[in-house]
Amino acid sequence: MNIHGKHYQSIWFDENDCNVKIIDQTRLPHRFEVLALSSLQDACHAIESMQVRGAPLIGVTAAYGMYLALREDPNQLAVALDRLASTRPTAVNLQWALNRVSAALRNTVVEERAASALQQAQAMAAEDSAICEAIGDNGAKLLQEIWDARPDQSKPLNVLTHCNAGALAAVDWGTALSVIYKTAAAGVPLHVWVGETRPRNQGASLTCWELAQQGIDHTLIVDNAGGHLMQQGLVDCCVVGSDRTTITGDVCNKIGTYLKALAAFDNQIPFYVALPVSSIDFSLTDGAKGIPIEERGAEEISHFIGLNDNDEVQRVRLCAEDVAISNYGFDVTPARLVSKIITEKGVCAAEQSQLQKLRV
Amino acid sequence: MNIHGKHYQSIWFDENDCNVKIIDQTRLPHRFEVLALSSLQDACHAIESMQVRGAPLIGVTAAYGMYLALREDPNQLAVALDRLASTRPTAVNLQWALNRVSAALRNTVVEERAASALQQAQAMAAEDSAICEAIGDNGAKLLQEIWDARPDQSKPLNVLTHCNAGALAAVDWGTALSVIYKTAAAGVPLHVWVGETRPRNQGASLTCWELAQQGIDHTLIVDNAGGHLMQQGLVDCCVVGSDRTTITGDVCNKIGTYLKALAAFDNQIPFYVALPVSSIDFSLTDGAKGIPIEERGAEEISHFIGLNDNDEVQRVRLCAEDVAISNYGFDVTPARLVSKIITEKGVCAAEQSQLQKLRV
Repeated sequence: MNIHGKHYQSIWFDENDCNVKIIDQTRLPHRFEVLALSSLQDACHAIESMQVRGAPLIGVTAAYGMYLALREDPNQLAVALDRLASTRPTAVNLQWALNRVSAALRNTVVEERAASALQQAQAMAAEDSAICEAIGDNGAKLLQEIWDARPDQSKPLNVLTHCNAGALAAVDWGTALSVIYKTAAAGVPLHVWVGETRPRNQGASLTCWELAQQGIDHTLIVDNAGGHLMQQGLVDCCVVGSDRTTITGDVCNKIGTYLKALAAFDNQIPFYVALPVSSIDFSLTDGAKGIPIEERGAEEISHFIGLNDNDEVQRVRLCAEDVAISNYGFDVTPARLVSKIITEKGVCAAEQSQLQKLRV
Repeated sequence: MNIHGKHYQSIWFDENDCNVKIIDQTRLPHRFEVLALSSLQDACHAIESMQVRGAPLIGVTAAYGMYLALREDPNQLAVALDRLASTRPTAVNLQWALNRVSAALRNTVVEERAASALQQAQAMAAEDSAICEAIGDNGAKLLQEIWDARPDQSKPLNVLTHCNAGALAAVDWGTALSVIYKTAAAGVPLHVWVGETRPRNQGASLTCWELAQQGIDHTLIVDNAGGHLMQQGLVDCCVVGSDRTTITGDVCNKIGTYLKALAAFDNQIPFYVALPVSSIDFSLTDGAKGIPIEERGAEEISHFIGLNDNDEVQRVRLCAEDVAISNYGFDVTPARLVSKIITEKGVCAAEQSQLQKLRV
């Protein structure tokens, strides 16, 4: 992705100091800061505190976390796998990435474990970037079709997205936003409605920032406004990402996705979900019953972090101190509300017969 | 309503200083402050800045505003009517209240205009309180029925509401929350899910505060979470208010109401709208096309106001400075998603044949 005119990835191995570097996403959009991860603890903290977030990026960070753990102590393989697996419960990529590193290390001698884990993490990062780019290419065809079919091309194609499924949620490109970048690159005039995405405001703080860096026209809205915009004919399609998708096409994504999908369905607007095949959970057939939904701390809802008038990052409390708060991080959109699933292997219906073909 | 153990209304005429007193709702929940309105300008500012808000309360405030205007200058009748009518476009009660004051003044001599307007405003305030109490009584029967039909009464009845349609949105009691207060008073164990209601957070700052003052168990959630809770069986019914309802039953209410109604419909959960007959627009048959939707300032979305760690009310900016923002205040829920309309005259279906009987 382009940041202040320079190419960046969300995570990379820095050969100068042999540490893993990330963009600290808890500081955006007010500060652009690169953080060094030098230990297992750093990697776990980065995932838990959401310095890195987004299903693809969580997976790659976990792989790099295995490298950091094994260079500290090559014998803490099982401990490190457990510790990283417990950082966040919903994204299936996390377990997928750990399984892959674990499998690669099965026949590796102890003293080569760290090097082998690093190799795996770097390979996964490169693959993730290529996968996300392919997701964008495949999805852009769908948006190009909508554009080509539109009788009136005097106004841009309006796309609504939720949360941040962009380059910041992956190593590069992103999933939903990759589709947007590739559509824009193909010459389709685009405008993106960005839901702010309470409680952590990833839309307002990350997606708006990322789109601005790439020069894509966009407007910030509250999550509540998506239905109204669709009802008023101001949305041509929705594109979101996914943290875990069942083999039957139920999509688990950031809380509030289900509400947008209902509104899209009610207004006959295509609702696309862009995801890498690694985020499909081939063992699950019922998303609402089977996917563990992470509950996070109350402070994400009671407090806001922003810039005060003195340009300092500050936290303010919105509600009274003793209010009971419940904070579910994700919801499940039933397959019947999903128009198409966009993966690196192509576009398909949200149906088991189609999705199971993606399994290698 | 009960505030710190004492009975209050949201607006009243203070005979000691002959001013109109309001609870400043922009300061809640952090500060409980009573403001004096002593001029037309004060009344307009109170409505525009949302020191008072909520369809019923806006109407009564406008009536008191006519009194304040006419005591300044009994000849500024037409000017004052125009000025107050332009404060907010969506709530139909505003125009209804102004029409009523205007009609009462038609045969009043100039020197008695102020006194007559005050009499009207006080009568409307008393009526509004009685109307809201009757709405609560009528709605409580519906919730009692749901409770009585529930096989498992080991857990409380879970009600989801949006925004603040409470005593703070009216003179007293409220609309949606009146239903909740009356249900609780009837002995039904209740728990209320309160959506924070972006962008102005009336759920987090007003509804939670109001429910706490009345001793009703509640939990704050983000607006995005409503669908997930319904899908997981954690909501027994939804009750919301309305700023304007068409004769055909389309309900205009705080932005995001439509999304909750879609989720309720998708999960076969009753979706009730509580409103005074004065908020029915008998001239409109299509809500999505006919009701003007107020667009408000970008700062309501870009900035949050809360309490910092030093207990000072402070404003912080969430997104980058130059982000384009669109801020629609309301949306329209089509009648087909509304289970019942609850008014002071009784409960009916959201259908023209039923609603037109309410017209006097």
